[in-house]
Amino acid sequence: MAQKPSIPKGTRDFNPEQVAKRNYIFNTIRGAFETFGFQPIETPSFENSETLMGKYGDEGDRLIFKILNSGDFLGKANEEAYEAKDSLKLTPSISEKALRYDLTVPFARYVVQHQNEIEFPFKRYQIQPVWRADRPQKGRFREFYQCDADVVGSDSLWQEVEFIQLYDAVFSALKLEGVTIKINNRKILSGIAEVIGAHDKLIDFTVALDKLDKIGEEKVKEEMRSKGIPEEGIEKLQPLFSLSGAFETQIEVLKSILSTSEEGMKGIEELAFIDNAISELGLQTAALQLDVTLARGLNYYTGAIFEVAAPDSVKMGSIGGGGRYDDLTGIFGLKNVSGVGISFGLDRIYLVLEELNKFPETVTKNVEVLFINFGDKEALFSLKAIKTLRENGINAELYPDAAKMKKQMNHANKRAIPYVVLVGESEMTSNTFTLKTMKTGEQHTLTLEDLIAHI
Amino acid sequence: MAQKPSIPKGTRDFNPEQVAKRNYIFNTIRGAFETFGFQPIETPSFENSETLMGKYGDEGDRLIFKILNSGDFLGKANEEAYEAKDSLKLTPSISEKALRYDLTVPFARYVVQHQNEIEFPFKRYQIQPVWRADRPQKGRFREFYQCDADVVGSDSLWQEVEFIQLYDAVFSALKLEGVTIKINNRKILSGIAEVIGAHDKLIDFTVALDKLDKIGEEKVKEEMRSKGIPEEGIEKLQPLFSLSGAFETQIEVLKSILSTSEEGMKGIEELAFIDNAISELGLQTAALQLDVTLARGLNYYTGAIFEVAAPDSVKMGSIGGGGRYDDLTGIFGLKNVSGVGISFGLDRIYLVLEELNKFPETVTKNVEVLFINFGDKEALFSLKAIKTLRENGINAELYPDAAKMKKQMNHANKRAIPYVVLVGESEMTSNTFTLKTMKTGEQHTLTLEDLIAHI
Repeated sequence: MAQKPSIPKGTRDFNPEQVAKRNYIFNTIRGAFETFGFQPIETPSFENSETLMGKYGDEGDRLIFKILNSGDFLGKANEEAYEAKDSLKLTPSISEKALRYDLTVPFARYVVQHQNEIEFPFKRYQIQPVWRADRPQKGRFREFYQCDADVVGSDSLWQEVEFIQLYDAVFSALKLEGVTIKINNRKILSGIAEVIGAHDKLIDFTVALDKLDKIGEEKVKEEMRSKGIPEEGIEKLQPLFSLSGAFETQIEVLKSILSTSEEGMKGIEELAFIDNAISELGLQTAALQLDVTLARGLNYYTGAIFEVAAPDSVKMGSIGGGGRYDDLTGIFGLKNVSGVGISFGLDRIYLVLEELNKFPETVTKNVEVLFINFGDKEALFSLKAIKTLRENGINAELYPDAAKMKKQMNHANKRAIPYVVLVGESEMTSNTFTLKTMKTGEQHTLTLEDLIAHI
Repeated sequence: MAQKPSIPKGTRDFNPEQVAKRNYIFNTIRGAFETFGFQPIETPSFENSETLMGKYGDEGDRLIFKILNSGDFLGKANEEAYEAKDSLKLTPSISEKALRYDLTVPFARYVVQHQNEIEFPFKRYQIQPVWRADRPQKGRFREFYQCDADVVGSDSLWQEVEFIQLYDAVFSALKLEGVTIKINNRKILSGIAEVIGAHDKLIDFTVALDKLDKIGEEKVKEEMRSKGIPEEGIEKLQPLFSLSGAFETQIEVLKSILSTSEEGMKGIEELAFIDNAISELGLQTAALQLDVTLARGLNYYTGAIFEVAAPDSVKMGSIGGGGRYDDLTGIFGLKNVSGVGISFGLDRIYLVLEELNKFPETVTKNVEVLFINFGDKEALFSLKAIKTLRENGINAELYPDAAKMKKQMNHANKRAIPYVVLVGESEMTSNTFTLKTMKTGEQHTLTLEDLIAHI
């Protein structure tokens, strides 16, 4: 019967310290979300398969975890697919539910389903796990949390401004200085594609441009040529390859490139509005940077595109991202609802804080004081004091057994409990408590009041 | 493409108010757990199937949600089962993972897997969802949270004492007065079965006794007879049927019945120890009651058995339960680890608090103040003030669009936001803010400092 216990690959157990550190990040994000007026919702871990399937492309469909129907599921199996042993085709007939793949599609489903109860513009946040049957690798898991905030029902640019402030508020509260919030606009990318005569090749063009950092100017140009982008178009791009520096400087260069594109100029106007507002409002510790190579989720975003980079001293992919989308709820029948949202990457933020040693020491809500157990009489006396300590918000406990003193002291040491209390015959007689500070070995005999004050 | 959106039966969406109320309960329980020295762990939502299967009986196995293997899962399907279209037999070959059915088995797996990192006695708590393919009905869901606290690695009865205090602490903090903590002991039930000559019929006997409240003395006796419990044994039980009243009184009656059973007398001794300690320590608002008919989870518990009943004014099943088990981790190869634990039933506690109107009004962390948007200049001025409000911990927001005043005021009303701030030309000139209290309609023009003080 005994089995060597293990967990599925790509999943994790979290020990008390890890849970405490993760909760520190969650609570910081949640606190900022609420200060900014976002309200929490939660959706079920699994959705009807038709809610999820077809929303993330073929690759996404493959990565969605499907739940097997209960009971005699083969009774309703698609006979043709069963005969042919066709897994893909059989699946819909034996699995009606699937685990959430992200928080965005369930949110869209929620908005449409509850549209009559919702007061728009609707500012919601959601912090829940998602599941993907991805190949596990360093920093990529099959179960992980997403932390999303979105506003739907308004296309005001003030929301983009507020999301930049929100990123800044969260990372400042986490004491993670030196974060860069990169911003771009889909309309600028469309505008560039237009002026270089590659409007039909927007994806190819942005995929190539996105690699500028990694493969350099010449190789990007090569890739563009190979995708059929005309030489004269690539020449027009020349100023883009050396584009850097201050927001305003970049805006001026973009204006000269995009002067003939209405859409491009609209994108510039939006970026300038956001940049101007942020300059007026100021950021605490983050920097806002225009990055025209930024193209994440291009199929999806219609306006602003955000991505957050960790401080330069840490090698880490993006720790957050988001953007403006114009028709999220359309797939569920509710048209013309504009939305904008951002997401925080919990696992990567955790790794960054760990690497930079930014978790506060007090993050683990450890037991503050252990009462040594010398026997039932002493234990009862101790529990009365412990009760008072707990009522005063002090995490306190009694060692459950009257084990050898050394064993109990070792327990306190191994669990890094800062104080132990010793209660013997003389303490009980005088109604006092001997407090030992584990670090220094110092001992003081105190009244209960002084004990509380001391801890 | 448009679909009428819905969620799987037995699952729920939670709106902001519901999330806030649920978090209020979670946070109260979590706070008490930590004050009592319990530390949080988390385990993956799905486990390897062999970790879960066979741990909850045949019925449990059927109710476990299985996850379909990814990719061409039929390639590895059991051929014999496939030929025979045998769903039950086919399942293990096409599904290797399953959703958590409770928190106890994953906890046992965790303890065994991490035994070398754990310092025993190990006090852990865990608040996570579980999934069961049960037929949904009122108050029974397919996805629901469990809140468990357990200690493993010590058989000290002080832990039973502390769990009673913990129940009392949580329900007192929730202002839920009049809760009854029922306690029994497996050894007493075994002892009774022994003295009436039905040791081999312990389950039949306790199942019948458990119905005393519902079907009455005569029908219970009938059922016992029908299960082959001898008439003279049933006669010996006579004092049990009218057993009630004070803990000590019941203990005396039990002593007279169980005097010949060593195990029964051990059970009495344990109960008396716990009762005595609780009498000395006192409870805040709950009452401790001995209930010899209490037999929940009998296959499993070896000592104390707990169950918590809601206040009499509410019709509701148990809102918590637990007990002592002696060999939880044996199934995973770690023998002789005694444990004791309790669980809180979140959904039922929620319903009870709702029915008795016990949720604090402040539980929903709503936005406190909405700034009306009169245009870009006013909006920017407002956002500067909002930034300061947020830094002072006030949940504040700007209406994103310069919509009609009436529409914006309606929005504040519908969302029950208590204050709005109006900023026009004159306010900008004098650097002031007009604060309107929505309830009374009162308006005051204030400096930023006074505004913060006022909210």
